[in-house]
Amino acid sequence: MAQYIYGKNMVQQLLKDNKKIDVLYVLDNQKDIEQAGRKKGIRIERVDRKHLDKLAEGGNHQGVIAKVEEYKTVSIDQILSTIPEDKLGFLVMLDELEDPHNLGAILRTADAVGVDGIIIKKNNAVGLTSTVAKVSAGAIETVPVADVTNLTQTLKQLKDKGYWVVGTDMKNAQDYRQPKYDTPIVLVIGNEGKGISRLVKEECDFLVKLPMVGEISSLNASVACGILMYEVYNKRFPL
Amino acid sequence: MAQYIYGKNMVQQLLKDNKKIDVLYVLDNQKDIEQAGRKKGIRIERVDRKHLDKLAEGGNHQGVIAKVEEYKTVSIDQILSTIPEDKLGFLVMLDELEDPHNLGAILRTADAVGVDGIIIKKNNAVGLTSTVAKVSAGAIETVPVADVTNLTQTLKQLKDKGYWVVGTDMKNAQDYRQPKYDTPIVLVIGNEGKGISRLVKEECDFLVKLPMVGEISSLNASVACGILMYEVYNKRFPL
Repeated sequence: MAQYIYGKNMVQQLLKDNKKIDVLYVLDNQKDIEQAGRKKGIRIERVDRKHLDKLAEGGNHQGVIAKVEEYKTVSIDQILSTIPEDKLGFLVMLDELEDPHNLGAILRTADAVGVDGIIIKKNNAVGLTSTVAKVSAGAIETVPVADVTNLTQTLKQLKDKGYWVVGTDMKNAQDYRQPKYDTPIVLVIGNEGKGISRLVKEECDFLVKLPMVGEISSLNASVACGILMYEVYNKRFPL
Repeated sequence: MAQYIYGKNMVQQLLKDNKKIDVLYVLDNQKDIEQAGRKKGIRIERVDRKHLDKLAEGGNHQGVIAKVEEYKTVSIDQILSTIPEDKLGFLVMLDELEDPHNLGAILRTADAVGVDGIIIKKNNAVGLTSTVAKVSAGAIETVPVADVTNLTQTLKQLKDKGYWVVGTDMKNAQDYRQPKYDTPIVLVIGNEGKGISRLVKEECDFLVKLPMVGEISSLNASVACGILMYEVYNKRFPL
């Protein structure tokens, strides 16, 4: 299925990365992007704003939309095979995440700290859509995503390969600053409302939590995930 | 102006906190919330889904909407007067933030780390709307927000009171893990696309940046802000 990637930054990133674009839809005031696309031999279609609004499903397209093939997922083995032998593996598993803004923001932070891959469940509530792509600011192209049928089976396999599974929870969890994170790590982030499911939690080697001194009981999922990802990075690459 | 607060969790939080609700609009299958509202003497109106959809402006209302007075902002002096004398003040200034999801998520993290107040510009692109309230998971009620006419003037005043102004930037900035953050702090977060404006940047005592090893050049604003807020918290309250 085709995906429609919209917004100037996103489309410029696609052009810069020489990604395959099937069609570039533009308003007639988008000369720069039109010319850049033409130089690369991409088919250009000048359309009206109504047409773009429809393709972007109400998203803020800024006058440019690229039609591309759907974002591809990879297998866990493909992710593992790309990790250099002298690097400690770092994977992030999303257990039934629902909000495309969270997935996009997590991809963006994952790129920043050198996460080797993201694992989601096949037929997860949120997949690799154009909203995710837009929010990821291009990280959907740089961080491989694996979709697996069974999260707990995947965790068992990763544990056999030496990975430690770190879950997040409010109860029975240690302060996230305590662990050394000096083994290969799978960081598991739960659903925005329900947290990590019971079966997945049972596979966790340890649980961590963020200190919270206010009245609210949890953080936004992509913010919490970002803080935890940077903690792993900081432990591995201290100042 | 009235605000419409929607979603079960948000409305339950309002009820729990005994917030003034003018009207509770419910679908007729929302008996629990309806009864809880009735007990508090709130006017209940059973309406159809179409009515709720309109009030929530397309948001996911889950069958319940509370009409409340608009979220109030406070003055800087009101914020400063609530900070205990033995506490190092911690303020966050948002310089032209645009996305209500970012403001909501920042309020939520601010509550978690004990930020004393948020400063935004009067007539900022994003104010205290019901979307911000929903994403904040209730933190809009617990973290005071000041809207000021002039950000740089406000920073000058805060510097006179002993605050250090910490900006975020990619260039000419030190690693965010370097400073001790052992003075009263105003953390300044810039616009999602453009970053901190020039005049505001000139008031910064120092600039910090997050290490980024990937291909993407910036993080989501609420994620970056969350990581920085936790760093200040961690330096002040180490393990």
